[in-house]
This record gives sequence, C-alpha cells and structure tokens, in this order.
Amino acid sequence: MAMGWFYLSFYSLWFLGLMCIILTIFWMHLWHGGFAWDGTILMFNYHPVLMVVGLVVLYSAASLVYRLPQSWAGPKLPWKIGHAALHLLAFILTVLGLVAVFQFHRHSKVANLYSLHSWLGIVTVFLFACQWFLGFAVFLLPWASVWLRSLLKPIHFFFGVIILSLSVASVISGINEKLFFSLKNATQLYSSLPSEAVFANSLGMLVVLFGLLVFYILLVSSWKRPEPGILTEGQPLLPDGE
Amino acid sequence: MAMGWFYLSFYSLWFLGLMCIILTIFWMHLWHGGFAWDGTILMFNYHPVLMVVGLVVLYSAASLVYRLPQSWAGPKLPWKIGHAALHLLAFILTVLGLVAVFQFHRHSKVANLYSLHSWLGIVTVFLFACQWFLGFAVFLLPWASVWLRSLLKPIHFFFGVIILSLSVASVISGINEKLFFSLKNATQLYSSLPSEAVFANSLGMLVVLFGLLVFYILLVSSWKRPEPGILTEGQPLLPDGE
Repeated sequence: MAMGWFYLSFYSLWFLGLMCIILTIFWMHLWHGGFAWDGTILMFNYHPVLMVVGLVVLYSAASLVYRLPQSWAGPKLPWKIGHAALHLLAFILTVLGLVAVFQFHRHSKVANLYSLHSWLGIVTVFLFACQWFLGFAVFLLPWASVWLRSLLKPIHFFFGVIILSLSVASVISGINEKLFFSLKNATQLYSSLPSEAVFANSLGMLVVLFGLLVFYILLVSSWKRPEPGILTEGQPLLPDGE
Repeated sequence: MAMGWFYLSFYSLWFLGLMCIILTIFWMHLWHGGFAWDGTILMFNYHPVLMVVGLVVLYSAASLVYRLPQSWAGPKLPWKIGHAALHLLAFILTVLGLVAVFQFHRHSKVANLYSLHSWLGIVTVFLFACQWFLGFAVFLLPWASVWLRSLLKPIHFFFGVIILSLSVASVISGINEKLFFSLKNATQLYSSLPSEAVFANSLGMLVVLFGLLVFYILLVSSWKRPEPGILTEGQPLLPDGE
C-alpha cells in the first residue's frame, strides 16, 4: 500500500512535469510565434521553456533520485553521480535560459535584471550554482570526512528545497510579468481574461502543484534512503500513506 | 550555544518581519499617497500592507508559537489557543486585505481575479481558511482522538509550510505586478530602475529572506516542542547549531 502510494505520487509527478513542459512550449508556440536562437523575441521564447524544463522539472527529477527504492540497495556512488549529473544538466539548461533572455535584451536594447522577478530568479540561479559546487566538492569528491558530510547533508537538503521554492516563485512572477507585457492592447487586455491568460495562468498553477508534489515526496521520511548510523531514526514528517 | 543560536534566529526574524511591514507602509505612503478606506486607489494601498502583515508576518509568528521554549513546559492548551487566535487574527487581516483590493476594483470597474498573482493568492487564502478550520476542529475542540491528531499533525505542519510558501510567492508576484502598473510612463519606467523600483524590489527580497528564516526555524528538529510517545525520536533535519 505504501509503495502503491509512492508510485502513484511518482507517476503523477511525471505526468505533471511533462504537462508543465508541453504547455510552456505550446504557450510560446501558439501565442508568441515559436522559437529561434537569433536575439529576437523568438529567442526570448526559449526563456520560459528552458526555465521550466531546467530549473523546475529536471531540477526536481534530480533531487528525487534518492527517493527511488532502486537507489537504496547496493553502492551509493552511481546514484550520487546520477544526482550530480542530472543537476548539472538542469543547471546548463537554466544558464541557456538566462542566455536566451539576456541576448534578447541586448538585441532589443532592454535593460537586464530590473524586475523583482529577475532579481529573485538570478539569486535562485546563484544559489543553485553554489549548491551544486558545494555538493560536488563535499559529497562526490572523496576528500570530505564522514563528520563533514553528516554536518552538511541536512543543510544541502534544506537549500535543495529552498532553491526549488524560489524557482517556483520566480516562474510564477515570470509568467505574470510576461502576461502583462503581451496582453496590453485594448482587445486583448489581461483583465479581460483572453484565452492566453487562462492558458498561462493555468500553467502557472500547474507549476505550483508540481512543486508541492515534489515537496511532499521529498519530505515523506519513509521514502528517504535509509542511512546507516546516526541518521537511521526518522521522525515521520508525513504519514507513510499506509 | 544552541539556545543562543535560537534566540539570534528569533530576534533576526522579529527584526526582518518588522522591516517588511514598515517598508511596505513606507512604499505605499511615499510613492502612492497613503491610505484611505474609500474604494479609491488609496484603499488599494491597504492591500499590500495587510497581506504582508497578515498572510506573511503574523501568519509566521502564529506558526512559530510552539518553537518558544516557554511553550514546552506546562499545559499545552493555552499555547494552542494562542496559536489558533494569532492565526485567526492573521486570517482576518488577510480577508481585510482582499476586501481592500476588491472594493477598489469595484469602485474603478476593474475585473477581479484575472492575474496569476490573484489566482495564486486566492488559492492561498482558501487553503489558509481550510487549514484553520480543520486545525480548530481537530486540535482545539476536544472530540478528536489521539490517533486522529497524530495522523493529521504532520499534514497540518506540511500545509502550514506550504501556505507560507504560497503566501511569499503571491507577495513576490504582487509586488512585481504593482511595479509594472505604477512604473509605466517614460520618465519612470520600471526598466530604468527608479528609486521606487529599487525600494520595492528590495522589499520583495526581504520578504523572501523572512520566509526562508521562518522555514529554517520551523524545520530545525531540536527546536520543536518535544512530544511524548511515538513522535519523540527526531531525525535532525538541520543541525542543532551547536
């Protein structure tokens, strides 16, 4: 029963993540003319897609590697490498997402990093970079002591959750901002809720739902990889679903 | 040392919370003409203030009641009543914050609930209401069994954290939206980062910092109220700061 609940949550997450990506592509394709890596507004269109794919969906998938029961048995190293590699891929896509918007701004002579959305987003990406490099140095390279790893592991976990929260907040403010930019002529005011507004608002709520489900899966203690020694005793943060 | 770290976190939180409230009042006062409960834009100005006070700062204060070591000894009921009463006050201020924006919209013939900010915000308030009534019915009224309380407590905690996350995301998208509304004439474009933009962006980042500190204090397991029985064994989600 507990495993059934786990897999239901997991497959729901896959479905939600896939929907978030597909709907973001559709949004940019149907209402904003699609994609081109050329500095124009069509290059900007990569920004929301790459952020949703990299900073939200792939970041979450990478974070959840140790929740797979398959990762619990046998050596941990291959799973650690998988965790780091998926996060690296997520980070590269995120940086490409930044390049897309910066290049568009440069091409259109728009200032960078002025809105609160951009301030929050850039802080999130900076924290993501710090988290990845610190995680790589402490948990993947062999030099760190067990004591240091035990000390930093809950902090690594805490910042992992925090970065996802900030990513979702950045995406929400980004979608909101984009809709105010694109729906401003009289026949297509955001406040008249045209089809694009309903579509992108729903996408935003779906991203929030996805993030909440990731938190849930991350926090259920019985779904965590059992650790030997001091970390074995687990207070169930959430019930087992039994 | 652990207690020193706790009180440092706690007083930092007080300071940050107070700063968030004062800066929001300043923002509305200095750049938007202050306050009046009259349906005009001056009534709208209550909206950000009441949301920051109710949905973020007071909500957080209410959530942290059981983290005070004073609450650990003696009967739990007075602290439960305090927890529920503070949350009720936070909820009332939140509803007044909604009244402020709805009345302004009605007066100015602007549609309600069209932006993603408003969708997310109204879902957050709805979840807050459900959380309060369920918490009141299960944890404060005497009829619920110990079994039911043990089952629902981690869910109550999870949704408590989730509602705060959604509140912060709503505030961030709200500040961003307000700045795009107010900074749109050529001499005062948001993209030229006039003083109001820097001020309100900084306020937004301060709200985020406040939220992160609340999460931190909520999640440090050794700062949780020790519970008898099954919940005594605690995995340290974060180190004790010792």
